Amino acid sequence: MFVVMQRAASEAEILGVKSRILAEGLTPYENPSAEGLKVAVVGEIGGRREALLGQLAQLPGVARVTPIKRPFKLTSREFHPDDTVIRVLDAAVGDGSLTVMAGPCSVESREQLLKTARRVKAAGATILRGGAFKPRTSPYAFQGLGVEALRYLAEARDETGLPVITEVMEPNQVDIVAEYADILQIGTRNMQNYSLLQSAGRVARPVMLKRGYGATVEEWLMAAEYIVSSGNPNVILCERGIRTFETYTRNTLDLAAVPLLHSLTHLPVIVDPSHATGKRFLVAPLALGGVAVGADGVMVEVHPDPDSALSDSEQQLTIEQFEALMVDLVPVHEHVSDLNGVVMRPVHADAPDGGGLSKH
Amino acid sequence: MFVVMQRAASEAEILGVKSRILAEGLTPYENPSAEGLKVAVVGEIGGRREALLGQLAQLPGVARVTPIKRPFKLTSREFHPDDTVIRVLDAAVGDGSLTVMAGPCSVESREQLLKTARRVKAAGATILRGGAFKPRTSPYAFQGLGVEALRYLAEARDETGLPVITEVMEPNQVDIVAEYADILQIGTRNMQNYSLLQSAGRVARPVMLKRGYGATVEEWLMAAEYIVSSGNPNVILCERGIRTFETYTRNTLDLAAVPLLHSLTHLPVIVDPSHATGKRFLVAPLALGGVAVGADGVMVEVHPDPDSALSDSEQQLTIEQFEALMVDLVPVHEHVSDLNGVVMRPVHADAPDGGGLSKH
Amino acid sequence: MFVVMQRAASEAEILGVKSRILAEGLTPYENPSAEGLKVAVVGEIGGRREALLGQLAQLPGVARVTPIKRPFKLTSREFHPDDTVIRVLDAAVGDGSLTVMAGPCSVESREQLLKTARRVKAAGATILRGGAFKPRTSPYAFQGLGVEALRYLAEARDETGLPVITEVMEPNQVDIVAEYADILQIGTRNMQNYSLLQSAGRVARPVMLKRGYGATVEEWLMAAEYIVSSGNPNVILCERGIRTFETYTRNTLDLAAVPLLHSLTHLPVIVDPSHATGKRFLVAPLALGGVAVGADGVMVEVHPDPDSALSDSEQQLTIEQFEALMVDLVPVHEHVSDLNGVVMRPVHADAPDGGGLSKH
Amino acid sequence: MFVVMQRAASEAEILGVKSRILAEGLTPYENPSAEGLKVAVVGEIGGRREALLGQLAQLPGVARVTPIKRPFKLTSREFHPDDTVIRVLDAAVGDGSLTVMAGPCSVESREQLLKTARRVKAAGATILRGGAFKPRTSPYAFQGLGVEALRYLAEARDETGLPVITEVMEPNQVDIVAEYADILQIGTRNMQNYSLLQSAGRVARPVMLKRGYGATVEEWLMAAEYIVSSGNPNVILCERGIRTFETYTRNTLDLAAVPLLHSLTHLPVIVDPSHATGKRFLVAPLALGGVAVGADGVMVEVHPDPDSALSDSEQQLTIEQFEALMVDLVPVHEHVSDLNGVVMRPVHADAPDGGGLSKH
Repeated sequence: MFVVMQRAASEAEILGVKSRILAEGLTPYENPSAEGLKVAVVGEIGGRREALLGQLAQLPGVARVTPIKRPFKLTSREFHPDDTVIRVLDAAVGDGSLTVMAGPCSVESREQLLKTARRVKAAGATILRGGAFKPRTSPYAFQGLGVEALRYLAEARDETGLPVITEVMEPNQVDIVAEYADILQIGTRNMQNYSLLQSAGRVARPVMLKRGYGATVEEWLMAAEYIVSSGNPNVILCERGIRTFETYTRNTLDLAAVPLLHSLTHLPVIVDPSHATGKRFLVAPLALGGVAVGADGVMVEVHPDPDSALSDSEQQLTIEQFEALMVDLVPVHEHVSDLNGVVMRPVHADAPDGGGLSKH
Repeated sequence: MFVVMQRAASEAEILGVKSRILAEGLTPYENPSAEGLKVAVVGEIGGRREALLGQLAQLPGVARVTPIKRPFKLTSREFHPDDTVIRVLDAAVGDGSLTVMAGPCSVESREQLLKTARRVKAAGATILRGGAFKPRTSPYAFQGLGVEALRYLAEARDETGLPVITEVMEPNQVDIVAEYADILQIGTRNMQNYSLLQSAGRVARPVMLKRGYGATVEEWLMAAEYIVSSGNPNVILCERGIRTFETYTRNTLDLAAVPLLHSLTHLPVIVDPSHATGKRFLVAPLALGGVAVGADGVMVEVHPDPDSALSDSEQQLTIEQFEALMVDLVPVHEHVSDLNGVVMRPVHADAPDGGGLSKH
Repeated sequence: MFVVMQRAASEAEILGVKSRILAEGLTPYENPSAEGLKVAVVGEIGGRREALLGQLAQLPGVARVTPIKRPFKLTSREFHPDDTVIRVLDAAVGDGSLTVMAGPCSVESREQLLKTARRVKAAGATILRGGAFKPRTSPYAFQGLGVEALRYLAEARDETGLPVITEVMEPNQVDIVAEYADILQIGTRNMQNYSLLQSAGRVARPVMLKRGYGATVEEWLMAAEYIVSSGNPNVILCERGIRTFETYTRNTLDLAAVPLLHSLTHLPVIVDPSHATGKRFLVAPLALGGVAVGADGVMVEVHPDPDSALSDSEQQLTIEQFEALMVDLVPVHEHVSDLNGVVMRPVHADAPDGGGLSKH
Repeated sequence: MFVVMQRAASEAEILGVKSRILAEGLTPYENPSAEGLKVAVVGEIGGRREALLGQLAQLPGVARVTPIKRPFKLTSREFHPDDTVIRVLDAAVGDGSLTVMAGPCSVESREQLLKTARRVKAAGATILRGGAFKPRTSPYAFQGLGVEALRYLAEARDETGLPVITEVMEPNQVDIVAEYADILQIGTRNMQNYSLLQSAGRVARPVMLKRGYGATVEEWLMAAEYIVSSGNPNVILCERGIRTFETYTRNTLDLAAVPLLHSLTHLPVIVDPSHATGKRFLVAPLALGGVAVGADGVMVEVHPDPDSALSDSEQQLTIEQFEALMVDLVPVHEHVSDLNGVVMRPVHADAPDGGGLSKH
């Protein structure tokens, strides 16, 4: 549930409401709004719901108390109707602009990274990606250059001005990655690594949370809730495909999740067609598809020489292919941005009722 | 495998090749091409492949003999590089134009259908859809108006000029449906109803084959192969979502299948966002997404009063919503049509090698 | 809903109830019980439920009227608490005995079939299987010997006394297959071929309905409902694996479905480990597993020389492997049969509430 | 690949082989065998395979060098044909005895745990389970008692003599959990948390690795490979169901994975029917099924009062239900143990070739 304070509520009244919430062993989260300050009440409410709702409504300065139906609270549009916009250096994610995260799967050398960074910047990328710590299915596969790669990423950022995103794989890495990178990425295998989510929730860097390849949309939002409730409101969601029986593609990109998320949450949504398809020739069409369904941007793997790449060689675009993609992508985004808002941002009342926190 | 005849090959030489194929208990299929007549050789070739390939190459008038690697033969781009274009009345599917099939899930009355037909025609639909025989999960649910609905569809076609598509559920219905309708639809539950596929292969009407909700892309193409090898080359494929663990949406729309199919087959591909999502507010974004990934068109359920519909009430658009969708969809299609062909129609050599006829 | 008549209800009172049901455009189905005759009311009841329930309860001779919560009615344990036992020649399915259906994937010759029939009979099989009409993913693969195979099956039945089961693929084949075979099989691809289900519902032969590889348990029971509501109460369910992302096995055998079905329905349940796994070495363990979870029997593919088989060569057991399996299987079945009934046949009240007719 | 040393190989010769491997930047792992010491060679071998194979074969004291076809090396039966047996206190896992891990989902109080421990011990359980750190989908749900629960577990172990298993969620918890518990559990959401796997690989406690709900068997074995290659050979695998489209059950228990794993790996395999089904009435049948397909044991959630449980209340057995289950389970295990070894432990040569490290 959340409390909406009267516009004229005093500091003391606000404090009174928050104290009452804390006294119940619950946690208050504030969100300013035109209507008045909103205070979300989260925690194990259980059977106290009705009683608590009535008690809070009686406190001085309270305009109303509203239940949040979904199990995700702080990440829900019910509590936070306005889109979250994440600003990092000169880039913004979720403000209506086209976010393009591009770069190699793995940082393999200083030269490889710098060359790619310059070229993707020139082609219109807004954020530079590159793996430093690589989660690999096999313990015997290339595991990334680690801190050395972080240094190259920082150098590339300093030269090009592009903010840098890279994956963090465990709580102990959060600080070192946050020192070098501008955005932390949590990968598909770690979507429900709750210790990592909480650590990422305590650092002053935006976090991009990839969907678990076996996770429902609701579980994904619950994972985002872990980050936000730990103190970090700047979460970007990234759809990267789910596991199905289809074998031609590596995963099945769930583009319906994009408009679905836009109705359920205020967080921005990025689409990653590289990992979803695992095939170079499918990346460009699905990047266009992602933008057409209303994604806030795309993440694309680009490598100067994909055939020699140490990871994901079959799905990385050449720099030339990326440049060609950008020529097509920008006008599609512009076109879609001009569309009827009803089509692309569904009215909240029409949001789905089905689904639910079911299985794991 | 297929034989390419020399351009100057005589009728007798062509006949010689075909006779040789028939003598093996196999079937020849002809496809004219700029290079010279192509003759596909299909059937249970088994261990004879190498020998037969050598023998055919020796026959007079033969330019070359080429194996077809995929298990689908007549439907493959390997055999038939040019896009199949299907023309029916004034409509064309697969020629680069935007195909829009619209209409109610079920034909419920003459008035309901005619009203919808006039309005979707005015909004830009090119083909009218409407269910006469309805496959329903429950034997106790509305099963469609049957032949009465076919008559209304024919009347709507005669009034609006829109070709009519409707589902056929069993071999015995093929003739009666073909009498009234312009395009036969085979539904998701019947994708591997081989008797029905063969019956549809013997009738002079285009067939739209929906993907089985549990079927791989390869099995889908093998099902199309049943129709084409039975004599009907005019097959349209319709992606309508597959089964996954996600519960917010009815199915998961596999938009990667669209460019994948464009690389594997010459048949046109339509996207159905209504059945894929099962939620009205997701239909428009996914229709745009379908067109952006290169689909030849969309199929959308439209009803004058969805809340009172006898089937699929949660996913049918109102007429007004359909009109708004068309305003957005047409320019996106135009825009995508102008794009770099490399992006939207992958070069054939880059087609995937993975996947395979595995499971059932 | 169903009506329970008073034990002393007269013929006229029973007729009165049935007439009332028919007058509503609904269909009555009778089921005798110790408590009194039960009459199920099925059809599109819609908004009339409450009113109708009240009206029927007032009719003379009526003891009570009870709603059926599940969407499947005649196949539900709610309506029909006692296990259905299907008797065919000397075999019985569902009576607590171990049903073993064995034989080749495809009937390939008279000798192959007769040899297999004699040997599996000697080893303890109770029913002979063999494919006459084969649904094949490829139109160019061996499609079965057809009527010739039916004749061999009948001959094998006459010689060994084993009832014969074989697949029927379309409504037009039902009569000819019913002429030769003792049990009709409807395959996984045709589970929602409603015309075929209805045809099979009108013939005086038991029907074994395989689960669709992409179908939920509830959809499967709805498909069985099509058969039963068409007039044929003798339906056997066969779990044969569902589609998942796992690639080592052909499908994923859902053994939880067996006790789940025993709680939801009165129909017997058979497990098919051959199609589920697609690997010979997994057949025996999963046959044991199937019996251990309470299945009424198993269906196993057996071939005198699997490596030369025209279909499914990787999963058919040799005759010797089948004999070894039977030595293990019979005592496990005996052992499980003696177990605490609470474990193996869950009390009805503990049945699940989740799930539902959701997606297709 | 692995090197088999001659039986008479000297220490110096063994050292020579290991030095050669280390000089390549690869890692040697030893496994004694009747044939002679085996030394596995793991790491990023890449294009050196052929050359290295030849070079190692030439070294003094080497009997032969054999490639390992599977991507998992140390966990493969190819390298390690004998079953791994894990001994902890008086219990053994994988030695042919029936392992039964039982206890509450979460440790909720000292009394709850001690009561359950005494009763499950009396009923025949061999290992006590109980959650201290709980991975919960919602950040607002009960997260476990933490270290307090570890202390109760140790007390219960000291009183009953049952070894204790509990989940560890992050690298930083490994030491504290290892201090109190006898076996570490890694849960389904952390199956590919590589940092955690490596930490668990460095501690002197057996590790039970649950299958990721979206993971293939091959990925699961690769995750086990992370633990073993980090130095801990004592890994138990636990099948607990995978994600599918079926909604009646929480997950789909993949019992075919049990005999499949027995052919692919030497590690013991446990089945968890509680998490797989999410429904109390399905636990007992699937426990029997798990044992019947050859599992080395089962893990079952048991609670003195499931309806009041703080987590998983719908799937925990009452103590009485657990006692009834044990009465049935023990003789099924005894029976299956006596079976023909060919059926239950497939000959290695018959292992599957399909599948592969494909998607993530």
